[in-house]
Amino acid sequence: MQFQLDHRLKKDGILLAESEKYILNLVNDSRYIWLVLIPKVTHAKDVFDLTETQQIDLTLLSSKIGQIITQQFNGDKFNIASLGNMVPQLHVHLIVRTEGDAAWPGPIWGVGDALPYSEQQQERVIKQLQVVVELLK
Amino acid sequence: MQFQLDHRLKKDGILLAESEKYILNLVNDSRYIWLVLIPKVTHAKDVFDLTETQQIDLTLLSSKIGQIITQQFNGDKFNIASLGNMVPQLHVHLIVRTEGDAAWPGPIWGVGDALPYSEQQQERVIKQLQVVVELLK
Repeated sequence: MQFQLDHRLKKDGILLAESEKYILNLVNDSRYIWLVLIPKVTHAKDVFDLTETQQIDLTLLSSKIGQIITQQFNGDKFNIASLGNMVPQLHVHLIVRTEGDAAWPGPIWGVGDALPYSEQQQERVIKQLQVVVELLK
Repeated sequence: MQFQLDHRLKKDGILLAESEKYILNLVNDSRYIWLVLIPKVTHAKDVFDLTETQQIDLTLLSSKIGQIITQQFNGDKFNIASLGNMVPQLHVHLIVRTEGDAAWPGPIWGVGDALPYSEQQQERVIKQLQVVVELLK
C-alpha cells in the first residue's frame, strides 16, 4: 500500500527531503530549528511497530541529523521525541534547543504560537539544512 | 570513571532495576506509567554522544520496554523522548499514555503536580513491572 503522509504533518511542515524510506519536514516555526522525520511505513504508530532493522535505521539517522543540526545552529541541547498523541502516524521530532529559547528549559510543545518563517528566513534555513538533506539521498 | 546517577533523576525515581549498562527508574507519579531509562555512560548528554552500538542497544531496549508496558497497562499510545534540558545527563522517558489521562493529548511534562504512589499502589505497580525488570538481567 502506498504511504500517505498524515494531512496535519503535511500542513505544519515544509518538505525538506523525501527518500524511499523517509520524509523530512521542517516545522514552520522560526523560534526553533525543529524537524520532523517520518518513516514511510504504513500503519506504524509506535516505534515498536517497526521491525528492528527499521528501528535501527531510524535511530542512527535521527541521531546523525541531530548531531549535524545541533552543531550547525549552535544548539545547547538536542531534543528527540516520538509522542504522537494527536497525530498517531509515527513521526520523530528533532529539535535544536538553545538556552533562553521561547520554551527553555521546558519542552517546546504547546508553548505560545508558532512564528512562521519569512520567505527570506525560510530560504536561508533551508540552505543551511542542505547537509542534512544529503543524508537522505 | 564510575558512573554517577544525577541527583535529580535519583530523587524523582524509584529504582526498578540496574544492570551493567543501564539504570531503570519508575517516576513517582501515579498519573502515568512513566519510566526513565539511563544508559550508564559517563558524560553522555545527547543521543549522538553514544557510539552507534550503544545507540542501537538503547533503542531496541527502549522499544521492547515500550511494547511490554503499553500492552500491560492497556495504553493507547507510547511516548518516548530524550529531552534533558533541565537534567543534562542522557536519559530516556518511556511513558504509557491513555486517552483521557491527566495531560492527554498533550505531553506530560509540566502538567499539574505529581501524584505520588501510595505504598500499596507502588508495590502493585512494581510487581506488574517485573517482566520489564527481567529485560535488564
